[in-house]
Amino acid sequence: MTTTKTHETRIEADPNLPVIRIIREFAAPRDRVFRAWTDPELVARWLGPKDTPTKIHVWEMRTGGHYRYSSLRDGQEIASFYGSFHEVRPNERLVQTFTWEGAPDGVSLETAAFEDVDGGTRVTILSVVESMELRDQILASGMEVGVNEGFEKLDEILAVE
Amino acid sequence: MTTTKTHETRIEADPNLPVIRIIREFAAPRDRVFRAWTDPELVARWLGPKDTPTKIHVWEMRTGGHYRYSSLRDGQEIASFYGSFHEVRPNERLVQTFTWEGAPDGVSLETAAFEDVDGGTRVTILSVVESMELRDQILASGMEVGVNEGFEKLDEILAVE
Repeated sequence: MTTTKTHETRIEADPNLPVIRIIREFAAPRDRVFRAWTDPELVARWLGPKDTPTKIHVWEMRTGGHYRYSSLRDGQEIASFYGSFHEVRPNERLVQTFTWEGAPDGVSLETAAFEDVDGGTRVTILSVVESMELRDQILASGMEVGVNEGFEKLDEILAVE
Repeated sequence: MTTTKTHETRIEADPNLPVIRIIREFAAPRDRVFRAWTDPELVARWLGPKDTPTKIHVWEMRTGGHYRYSSLRDGQEIASFYGSFHEVRPNERLVQTFTWEGAPDGVSLETAAFEDVDGGTRVTILSVVESMELRDQILASGMEVGVNEGFEKLDEILAVE
């Protein structure tokens, strides 16, 4: 549980590009972090805010595969998301697209890079969209709640799995 | 054949964003242009430069599907490309990822929008990458030859199909 206090999540808006960078370290080796990032049973346990559990409908975690999941409140689907896995490079790199179905024309291209650091793993997620306006809408959406709380749940999973 | 002379292809680099815009009109209605854009037998006849035929290996043209194809010279594969179809919205919009296998860390997110215009169809392709450097490398790669010659072949297909 102490790990949830020691690892800060940095969410940075690039000043010049329609890009968001999320940087986070985890107290587990790369293969275990990558597994928790890609195994649908584990992903469903940590992805998103604490008060809205995630239900995964489709999860083809392979290069050329795709996914779809929903956030639940009181058992109801309150938001759904989908995308494609452009490339799955085990323990190194995951490239995927991402759309919230409430704004179907907004598409992010997300690259997660996994690096060894001090006995743990640093994950850097670079998310690019087609305009500064869309990037700023995403930043203003409250996405940091899901990111921060999700990573705290992931810390707890990595402490035991 | 005259249509190949009347439709200019605009390839624009955005001054401020890591974006390339390609704008082209075709002398056929939207459903026929979209079909030529998505039917693998037709795509293989027009995609890419005139002197390097295209061989399609995988073509799952649906939301969540993926693709892979190669350019051939003297029957040999000289370059291969792959990606995912993030969204296929018939006759309106096609969102896909794109990577040249020679530079596997370079990924484009491409959105093609199909609009009615003067009895024909305007296609606007917006391609975004994660940095200005990668965008400029793509522009310097000679990609305009394949774009221009491919669209001239497509004009000829649309004149008869």
